[in-house]
Amino acid sequence: MTITSPQGFQASGIACGLKSSGAPDLALVRNEGPQFTAAGVFTANRVQAAPVQYTKKILVNGALKAIVLNSGGANACTGVPGYQDTIDTAEQVANALSIDADQVAVCSTGLIGERLPMPALLAGVQMASTQLRADGGHDAAEAILTTDSKAKTVNHAAENYTIGAMAKGAGMLAPSLATMLVVITTDAAIAAADADKALRQAVLHTFDRLDSDGCMSTNDTVLLLANGASGHTPALSDFTEQLTAVCADLSAQLMSDAEGSTKDVIITVTQAATEAEAVEVARAIARNNLLKCALFGNDPNWGRVLAAIGTTTATFDPDQLDVAINGSWVCEGGAAAADRSTVDLGGREINITARLNAGPAQATVFTNDLSHAYVHENSAYSS
Amino acid sequence: MTITSPQGFQASGIACGLKSSGAPDLALVRNEGPQFTAAGVFTANRVQAAPVQYTKKILVNGALKAIVLNSGGANACTGVPGYQDTIDTAEQVANALSIDADQVAVCSTGLIGERLPMPALLAGVQMASTQLRADGGHDAAEAILTTDSKAKTVNHAAENYTIGAMAKGAGMLAPSLATMLVVITTDAAIAAADADKALRQAVLHTFDRLDSDGCMSTNDTVLLLANGASGHTPALSDFTEQLTAVCADLSAQLMSDAEGSTKDVIITVTQAATEAEAVEVARAIARNNLLKCALFGNDPNWGRVLAAIGTTTATFDPDQLDVAINGSWVCEGGAAAADRSTVDLGGREINITARLNAGPAQATVFTNDLSHAYVHENSAYSS
Repeated sequence: MTITSPQGFQASGIACGLKSSGAPDLALVRNEGPQFTAAGVFTANRVQAAPVQYTKKILVNGALKAIVLNSGGANACTGVPGYQDTIDTAEQVANALSIDADQVAVCSTGLIGERLPMPALLAGVQMASTQLRADGGHDAAEAILTTDSKAKTVNHAAENYTIGAMAKGAGMLAPSLATMLVVITTDAAIAAADADKALRQAVLHTFDRLDSDGCMSTNDTVLLLANGASGHTPALSDFTEQLTAVCADLSAQLMSDAEGSTKDVIITVTQAATEAEAVEVARAIARNNLLKCALFGNDPNWGRVLAAIGTTTATFDPDQLDVAINGSWVCEGGAAAADRSTVDLGGREINITARLNAGPAQATVFTNDLSHAYVHENSAYSS
Repeated sequence: MTITSPQGFQASGIACGLKSSGAPDLALVRNEGPQFTAAGVFTANRVQAAPVQYTKKILVNGALKAIVLNSGGANACTGVPGYQDTIDTAEQVANALSIDADQVAVCSTGLIGERLPMPALLAGVQMASTQLRADGGHDAAEAILTTDSKAKTVNHAAENYTIGAMAKGAGMLAPSLATMLVVITTDAAIAAADADKALRQAVLHTFDRLDSDGCMSTNDTVLLLANGASGHTPALSDFTEQLTAVCADLSAQLMSDAEGSTKDVIITVTQAATEAEAVEVARAIARNNLLKCALFGNDPNWGRVLAAIGTTTATFDPDQLDVAINGSWVCEGGAAAADRSTVDLGGREINITARLNAGPAQATVFTNDLSHAYVHENSAYSS
């Protein structure tokens, strides 16, 4: 039920001392072929970690034979020496697996601004390469976690091929992409251009619509490996649909495990003039700290939804705004409607619908509440 | 030391039952002339409370004889009936003071989406009108508070005239304008056009640069009344300078009393290509929840400053970013420099400087940390 569920992939996950806790912190993924198609999507942050810069560069070939991922350090804002560390890591993998360094993607996650302990990391790569197994997917999924409470994997069987995936990400969840490392494997045969197209499409309505805390990371990376081992070449539309389902599943897992969250908040903006405006409004709602605190307190404070909508440039008339919280239309025509007491906020899932009455478009953005635990976890992370 | 410090102003503050606590909740301010010059600046939120809509409309005359302000209810998102409530309030003041309703500004603050209890409010206006006093400024300043911990007033004596002011605002502090009601009085003689010009200029670098929690209110209002009672007509440049000092003083008071805050965070972006880009970057830093949590935890997590800068469109090279926290340059050239341990975050004030090395412009934005108490206050406000 992991990245090694599709045929022709091996993985391992080990502890090499990057985390002071001694927990697993290094994962290795190997594609055994016969094909080595790869595609990737990366953070839109302009401050990009060394492994992001490196992996973007080598991915122009559209091919990868291995991915090495470490937790315990982001290798971001580490300058030229940090970039060299990433190259050294890729070369260590290449030597161990007898492949080329430009066939090895590198992903890192953890604290920004600190160099990685390279002797430990390089020794770890050596160890991980000896432990590659066809059932190693779960070990790999464990080794990439930071503040996540559990491993996140998906196994998705299409008719003639399989997609497996793993993700980590619990804080700094925002576009573009949540703070996440995601590896998706498939034994379908996909041309590199199609893999890229399918991945971008799948990400657009899943990871890119997850905005847990409005913060965008320096390390976000989603990589897709396809080896054709199933002998099946799906239609692009079919593959895109299956891939989107996998990404949606991982997105939901990321939302549910977001740091300190007690609520999953699904914000749908309907009757917007354009999809872009629907997304703009949904994001403004998702990023309103006052609303997020209210939801943590089980308070259906729809006034804060309207105040958030009012900060956008979207097309709407303030007197024509309707808001439903968990199905109860507490605001109609820009004013109070159903009584607040009709809203049940007892469960983890909260659905907010904002109807702009301005057109045919809609969009959904996923976020969380703002809790004491979020503040606690993020005030103590690096110290 | 209040809005009644300048000559020719009376004020009162009373309790009329809008707040369930029984605390003062209605303030009245009267300008006795001889001039009735007025200017105003309002929230940029497109969802605007009834009193904001009303006051903007009557202020086109550039003249006001009275302002009535209530806490205990924002009268926002209350539709046509709510707007009528504002008109009725202004008319009650007009009757009580024998002036015209279009000479009466109305300001409200409190929960969004609830109608005001009009019988209590109208009786309160009557009572407040009988209690107007030349030393009533402090009572008025008390009556406009919501979650503020203390009254906020300023008395500023220029050479030949005086400026007095009061403010309320503790949450939903963001541009444009913090969530605030501000009344500024002066006995200087100022033409209406000059009053408007001076007020906009003063607000631009003070209230508009205060961004405590990224949330913009529906009710923000800053009103300036000038009556010429001192017989002195200052030069516009002099008056603007004095007015800016008053607004800066109030801004600092608002920052220090922001809901649940434990830190005042002063973010200065230097060597930006343009002032607009400096503001964009400073705001992105000010709104980064992860950084705000770190500062609450006394953690000089400069990596989160860089991650925030990276989300902007400003001109910069990621490898040429420098960051100082309380004077210690913890990041130079986009990578770690001075050790984190050199940063002393023990005090309430935290100064962050981000040097973009991209030009001559700079800007400062004021914010707060994100604390347990912020979450607590805002999860329990309306319930």
